Amino acid sequence: MGEKRYAIGIDLGGTNLRIALVSREGELIRKIKEPTPETLLESVRERTGTLISDEVAGIGLGIAGLIGRAERRVLISPNLHAVEKIDLVGGLEEKFGLPVVLENDANAAAAGEQWVGAGRGLSSFVLLTLGTGIGGGIVHGGELLGIAAEIGHMSIVGDGEKCGCGNYGCLELYASAKAILARASAALESGRESVLRSYCGGNFYKLTTEDIHRAAFDGDGLARELLKNAGRHLGIGIANIVNLMSPEAVILTGGLTGAWDLYVQEAIKEASRRALRELFDDVRIVPSTLKDDAGIVGAAGLVFRSVGIKA
Amino acid sequence: MGEKRYAIGIDLGGTNLRIALVSREGELIRKIKEPTPETLLESVRERTGTLISDEVAGIGLGIAGLIGRAERRVLISPNLHAVEKIDLVGGLEEKFGLPVVLENDANAAAAGEQWVGAGRGLSSFVLLTLGTGIGGGIVHGGELLGIAAEIGHMSIVGDGEKCGCGNYGCLELYASAKAILARASAALESGRESVLRSYCGGNFYKLTTEDIHRAAFDGDGLARELLKNAGRHLGIGIANIVNLMSPEAVILTGGLTGAWDLYVQEAIKEASRRALRELFDDVRIVPSTLKDDAGIVGAAGLVFRSVGIKA
Repeated sequence: MGEKRYAIGIDLGGTNLRIALVSREGELIRKIKEPTPETLLESVRERTGTLISDEVAGIGLGIAGLIGRAERRVLISPNLHAVEKIDLVGGLEEKFGLPVVLENDANAAAAGEQWVGAGRGLSSFVLLTLGTGIGGGIVHGGELLGIAAEIGHMSIVGDGEKCGCGNYGCLELYASAKAILARASAALESGRESVLRSYCGGNFYKLTTEDIHRAAFDGDGLARELLKNAGRHLGIGIANIVNLMSPEAVILTGGLTGAWDLYVQEAIKEASRRALRELFDDVRIVPSTLKDDAGIVGAAGLVFRSVGIKA
Repeated sequence: MGEKRYAIGIDLGGTNLRIALVSREGELIRKIKEPTPETLLESVRERTGTLISDEVAGIGLGIAGLIGRAERRVLISPNLHAVEKIDLVGGLEEKFGLPVVLENDANAAAAGEQWVGAGRGLSSFVLLTLGTGIGGGIVHGGELLGIAAEIGHMSIVGDGEKCGCGNYGCLELYASAKAILARASAALESGRESVLRSYCGGNFYKLTTEDIHRAAFDGDGLARELLKNAGRHLGIGIANIVNLMSPEAVILTGGLTGAWDLYVQEAIKEASRRALRELFDDVRIVPSTLKDDAGIVGAAGLVFRSVGIKA
C-alpha cells in the first residue's frame, strides 16, 4: 500500500467530462478533459483507470444535478439526463474498491475554491457556476453546506417563462449561456443585423458563447445587448443571494465569466442597486482562481476530508 | 447570587414590544406585551427592570432589522427606524450589568422554534415571519445561521415595484400584511364592492389583517382574492427557499398565518407547482407552535447558549 498522497476528482457536466489526479496539497498532477461521452459509466471507469495507483485515497465525483444524499445517486440532472439512470457511485466503487464521494458539481467547485482558490481563508462565500446552466455552492462558517443551493432555479421573474425544472422565471432562463444563445438565435431569425450572422454560416444554432464574446468585443450591438441583459438578470440573482446569505464574497466561475467587462460588470452594477447597502458594502464579487478546474480539485478535496486525511 | 435559572427575552417589532422572563426549560414565566412605544430605550429598560432578579442570566434582544454583528447595533430597520439611532445593547448592559445578546427578530424566533417549538429535533429548517413585513431565520446542521436571511427582500418580480429597501419586486411587497392592506385600500378606493367597506367606516387605512380574515371567512370576494394572491406570491418565495436551502421544514409564524386555509394553502399549492419535486417531497410546511412568543423565547434561549448554560 502506497502512501495516500492523491485523490481523483471527476467533474461531470452537460458539456465536458474532466478527470484529474490531485495531490494532498491541492495540486493538479494530471488532467483528462473531453466532451461528455454517451457511454457515461464505461468512459468514466476507463479514464479513471488510467490515473489509479495504490497512492490514491479515493474518488470524488462532482455531477451537474440534484444529489440524493441518502440514495448516493443523482436524482435529476436537467442538462445531463443520462446520469439519472445509472449508478456511478456503485460502478466506481465496485471497479476500484476505493471510497467514492458524490457531490453536486457546483458544491464541489465551492469546496475547491475554499481549499486552494479564491475562497481560501474566507469564512463564508457563495460560488456561482455560470455556464450552460447556473449552479451554486454555499460555504458558511468555514463549512460547505450540504444543501441543494440550486441558485439557477430561483425564480426572479415570478410569472416569467416556464423552466424545464417546473418553475417559472428561473434565473437560469435569463442569465445562463443557454439563455443568451437562445435569445441570439431568436434575434437573428427575426432579421436583426449582427456580425454573428457571418460567424455561423446561417445556422444560428451553431453559435457558441465564445462567438458572442468575440462579437461583443468587436463592438457588435446585438452581442453587447445580449450579454448586458443577461448580466443585469444575474445581478438580480446576486442581490437576492447577498440579502439572504450575507456572505463575505461571491465567487464567479464558468465560461460566461470570460465576458467579465460586460456581463459581470453589468451584474455587479445591478446587484449594487438592489442589495441591502450595508450587506453589499461588505461583499466582494471576484472571479474563481481555479476556473474550470475548481470542480475536479474540490471533488478530490472532499475525498481527503471524508477519509480523514488532512488536506 | 441566585442560580441563573432565567433569561429575559425581548422581541422588538414594528407593531409590538414583547418582553418575557423565560426559564432554562424554555417555559414562559411572565410576559409583557404592548404597542411598540415611542421612547424605545426608556420603555424597554423600565419594563425589563420589572423582570430582573439575581436569577437572571442575561438579556436577549430580537429586533426587526438588519443586525451589525461587529457593531452590536441595528444597521437598518425599515419598519422601526427609531431603533437605528439608539444603542439598545449598551443601554441595557449599562443599566443591568448583565450580558446582552442581539439578534434579528426572525432569527430569534427560529432559535425559539428550534429550542422548544416546531423545529425541535430538526436538523434544518427555514422560519418565515409573516406580519407587517416578512422576515426569515435559517437553521442548518442543527445551528442557527448567523446570516441576514432577509427573505422578505428577495426579489421575486425582477422589474416589479420599488421597495423601501432599494430593491425591486421584493417578496414583502406582494405577500406581507402591509402589501395586503395596501391592495385592499387601493381596491376599495377604486370602487370595488366588499364588506370591508362597512368594517372601517369609510377610512380604508384603518383596516387590519383581522378585518381581511373576517371578511374572507364570511365569503367576501375581494378579501379572498387578496389573501389568495398574497399566498400565491408567498409560494414563489417558499419554492425559492426550498430550491436553495433544501430544508426539512418551512415553519410559518406571524399574524397572517391566522388565514391558514386561504393564504397558506395557496402558498403551499403554488410552491408545490414550482419547487424541484424531489426537494418539495421531503419538506414539511408547518405552523409555528410558539406563535408570537417564538421571538422572546428564542432571544432568551440565545442568552443561555451564549453564557454557556445548557438550556
